[in-house]
Amino acid sequence: NDASTEAAAADIDAPIDDLVMPAPAVLPSSHTAAQAVAFLVQSGESVAEITYIFIVDDEKLVGVVGMRDLVLARPGQPLSEIMVPEPFRFKSGSGIDDAVRAALVKHYPVYPVVDEEDRLIGSVRGWQLFQRVVVEVTGQAGAQVGVSREEQITTPILSAFRMRHPWLQVNLLTAFAAAFVVGMFEDTITQIVALAAFLPVLAGQSGNTGCQALAITLRGLTLGQLDEYPVRKLLRKEILLGALNGFVVGIVAGIAMWLYASMSGEANAMMLGLVILVAMLGACTGSGIFGVVVPLTLKRFGADPAMASSIFLTTFTDILGMGLMLFLASSILL
Amino acid sequence: NDASTEAAAADIDAPIDDLVMPAPAVLPSSHTAAQAVAFLVQSGESVAEITYIFIVDDEKLVGVVGMRDLVLARPGQPLSEIMVPEPFRFKSGSGIDDAVRAALVKHYPVYPVVDEEDRLIGSVRGWQLFQRVVVEVTGQAGAQVGVSREEQITTPILSAFRMRHPWLQVNLLTAFAAAFVVGMFEDTITQIVALAAFLPVLAGQSGNTGCQALAITLRGLTLGQLDEYPVRKLLRKEILLGALNGFVVGIVAGIAMWLYASMSGEANAMMLGLVILVAMLGACTGSGIFGVVVPLTLKRFGADPAMASSIFLTTFTDILGMGLMLFLASSILL
Repeated sequence: NDASTEAAAADIDAPIDDLVMPAPAVLPSSHTAAQAVAFLVQSGESVAEITYIFIVDDEKLVGVVGMRDLVLARPGQPLSEIMVPEPFRFKSGSGIDDAVRAALVKHYPVYPVVDEEDRLIGSVRGWQLFQRVVVEVTGQAGAQVGVSREEQITTPILSAFRMRHPWLQVNLLTAFAAAFVVGMFEDTITQIVALAAFLPVLAGQSGNTGCQALAITLRGLTLGQLDEYPVRKLLRKEILLGALNGFVVGIVAGIAMWLYASMSGEANAMMLGLVILVAMLGACTGSGIFGVVVPLTLKRFGADPAMASSIFLTTFTDILGMGLMLFLASSILL
Repeated sequence: NDASTEAAAADIDAPIDDLVMPAPAVLPSSHTAAQAVAFLVQSGESVAEITYIFIVDDEKLVGVVGMRDLVLARPGQPLSEIMVPEPFRFKSGSGIDDAVRAALVKHYPVYPVVDEEDRLIGSVRGWQLFQRVVVEVTGQAGAQVGVSREEQITTPILSAFRMRHPWLQVNLLTAFAAAFVVGMFEDTITQIVALAAFLPVLAGQSGNTGCQALAITLRGLTLGQLDEYPVRKLLRKEILLGALNGFVVGIVAGIAMWLYASMSGEANAMMLGLVILVAMLGACTGSGIFGVVVPLTLKRFGADPAMASSIFLTTFTDILGMGLMLFLASSILL
């Protein structure tokens, strides 16, 4: 069961060979159009599976002939004259993810697959590539919070429990890290209890800002956009966005703290508001960094970049957001 | 700009008509195979766009002829004899989402589109449907945290700010609700300060459990699995899963609180551990409900079920998790 979970999660990184089926029609280029038609007639029922005739000379793929090419050909014409030479093909061993990206541009119904020596191994249907990516990608939001890509609505409850629970324990462990940081400032909270109410505000804002950066980074990885877009540029953009968002949100949250602390009769109400503004600015800027770095780090270590990424991310943002607020309050106000 | 954002988000709910192109080859069923071949020869360069010949009698779509059918036909055979009669077709006005689900089963390269009276309007290519769904679905994780499906890695920073920031302000507003609940228990926190450290633990666990249920519900909606699977059954499953996960995680967190409170010299350390266990059980069970109900409610109100779903969900889980812990602690221990 665990092995199949892993296989499902790695679906898109699997080699294209996993999807290869034998090519149903292979002919030499010296055959005529009339011979090709005769071949199709002899194929009987299985002709329905034939979209292209692959042209192979000396074991090497040299062209493809579509049904339309046959319709338009003269009966005596050799296939070498009507074939599309040097057709686009996938190399055995290349990843399904790369094949999917090619298919998003090419849109062919069927792709030939060849080995190192250009020998035809078989063919892959375009819709299989798309289906693979749709199932894969619909699992991405779940993967971020520890739901296996294998899990569906119909998965039995105990299997779902076995797959989801370990990640909740990981989440708990990371929450303890945040709790430990908050615990270090117990004295500060006892003296300025208004800070307790703002713990979820800091954690929530930095977490959501980080998840926004995470989502865009994951989308870029899935659609292959990060092959051309430099990581440094993305990082700079998300840092700026985090700072901008943190500053504007921080002003609103800071004013809210000011009002709240004033009403609670807290001393230094305005200073507390300023602490919230600065903490929010710092936490959201850091969240932008984590949102880009977490999935790229997971990928660099050979893991699925989405897997539990949100769990790791919110650990960092919780500690950063709440820690920064409590640290600033204790060092400035106490 | 706002209008185009909305359009991009509604991509998959748009009518199939948005993708329709004129059918490049339309012939009556009385034509012969030889006439059809002559038609293709006359089409010149544009023959490359022809995958099927659509057979239309009295303005109504009655069949399709594939290139393979033409290859295998005798020249004098009428198209009515070689066509696939009553072909699968999309109705004008039906949604792209339904079309995508059909395409996941049928895998045809091209689909005819007809109006109410079965008159051929044009055709839609299968890869267009898949491409639409891939772009749509890769935006789902971001949509949950307020990132527009229009946003890509290459989106300029100010556009990204304009699209993301309003949701961060919504998130802030909902965080204030959680802050308000925590604020109501300021006295409790002042007396049992160990509770402050466990605020992120309760919020984090119930939030993640809820996001797991949310992800599976959204996946079911996207893949169309909820058409057959009753919502009541899904709700029961997620409630049970939430309770099971909450109980096991609650035991670990409860023991952690017991140890932490004992070391802090807190009175009633064991009772505090029990409070954490019960609060975790209740919060995670409730999270399972919210995770199913939030996207279904958004959908019922005609909104994108993913849009900001995580923001709404974590508001509920924050209030439930932290509120339950503080309420139990204050009513049992004070």
